[in-house]
Amino acid sequence: MNVFITFEGGEGAGKSTILERLTERLITEGYPVLATREPGGIPISESIREVILDTNNTMMDARTEALLYAAARRQHLVEKVIPALQAGKIVLCDRFVDSSLVYQGAARGIGIEEVFQINQFAIADQMPDLTLFFDILPENGLKRISTNSDREQNRLDLESLAFHQDVYRAYMTLLEKFPERIKRIDANFGILEVEDQAYNKIKEHL
Amino acid sequence: MNVFITFEGGEGAGKSTILERLTERLITEGYPVLATREPGGIPISESIREVILDTNNTMMDARTEALLYAAARRQHLVEKVIPALQAGKIVLCDRFVDSSLVYQGAARGIGIEEVFQINQFAIADQMPDLTLFFDILPENGLKRISTNSDREQNRLDLESLAFHQDVYRAYMTLLEKFPERIKRIDANFGILEVEDQAYNKIKEHL
Repeated sequence: MNVFITFEGGEGAGKSTILERLTERLITEGYPVLATREPGGIPISESIREVILDTNNTMMDARTEALLYAAARRQHLVEKVIPALQAGKIVLCDRFVDSSLVYQGAARGIGIEEVFQINQFAIADQMPDLTLFFDILPENGLKRISTNSDREQNRLDLESLAFHQDVYRAYMTLLEKFPERIKRIDANFGILEVEDQAYNKIKEHL
Repeated sequence: MNVFITFEGGEGAGKSTILERLTERLITEGYPVLATREPGGIPISESIREVILDTNNTMMDARTEALLYAAARRQHLVEKVIPALQAGKIVLCDRFVDSSLVYQGAARGIGIEEVFQINQFAIADQMPDLTLFFDILPENGLKRISTNSDREQNRLDLESLAFHQDVYRAYMTLLEKFPERIKRIDANFGILEVEDQAYNKIKEHL
């Protein structure tokens, strides 16, 4: 099989839930699937993530952070994603290179092209075969999160609406830049409909 | 004053000793000098270095390592080098971007150009104003180290002669690539003569 699929989108778009559901669905159909997200239990990547999230490190420069994310990405890719692909699996990864481009590159202001350079170094030739972008306006995504009491708030949830709007605009830029790779999923519907859209895009690709 | 000077070369070339001696000499002459080397006591850079050197991390990929060195470099630059330059100091830094180009780029086989890309991201526009390359053939440098019982062996000392020869050849490539910035110091002489050569190159630049 051997297909690398990434899930992208703003907060509250439902991508993590749908990734879980699709993993079960594909496995039930007999496909070999690995579901993952960085740092994904890889010790080196976990250690790097600890440095990023250490609350003592308030002085961390945006470029230092982007390099650390790229380093953690590299090791997760080499130790987990590539071996699974070589074993013939479908790999579903919750956030990957595009998240760095929109969060560090655009929203933190470093520049999409510059962050793409260090990520190209990190992933070498292993770009995703298919990327699903779960499209919902940030104001609607954030509304969903605020009414979902099961969900733990993360660092990104706490950013301002303007930040999430920058992220959204940057995803739009990426859709234009990589039309072959990135497919838009309309995430404004209920979870079952959104899941079906994502399922169909994946099946078209297999 | 505001000059950023880096010291480069293989093992046993004497650059660290001479950096110390020149720091004292310039301070005695009344120049404001900061002597440093990465990670240089910067907490984030020290944490990153711990991840690199952790002996449990034997699976570390060469590109992961290069990204981590670039991240540690960025933070040391932002927190220590740039503030010193802004305060009007001469900064003498023991190894910098060129060391990554020769050790990770050439000797570890990633490629000089590719490692240069992530380092350009890390340092943005803050290239050194002057780089002193302490030139001694690797066989002679290693002989010096082996007869100097005061010196603690480091990880690089333990590499094979072939590795050090790759490093040396890569420094030669950099001398051709950056003739304006990198100045050659003949390190085959005694410490006092080599120090004087380095002193003169620095004074020419001030």
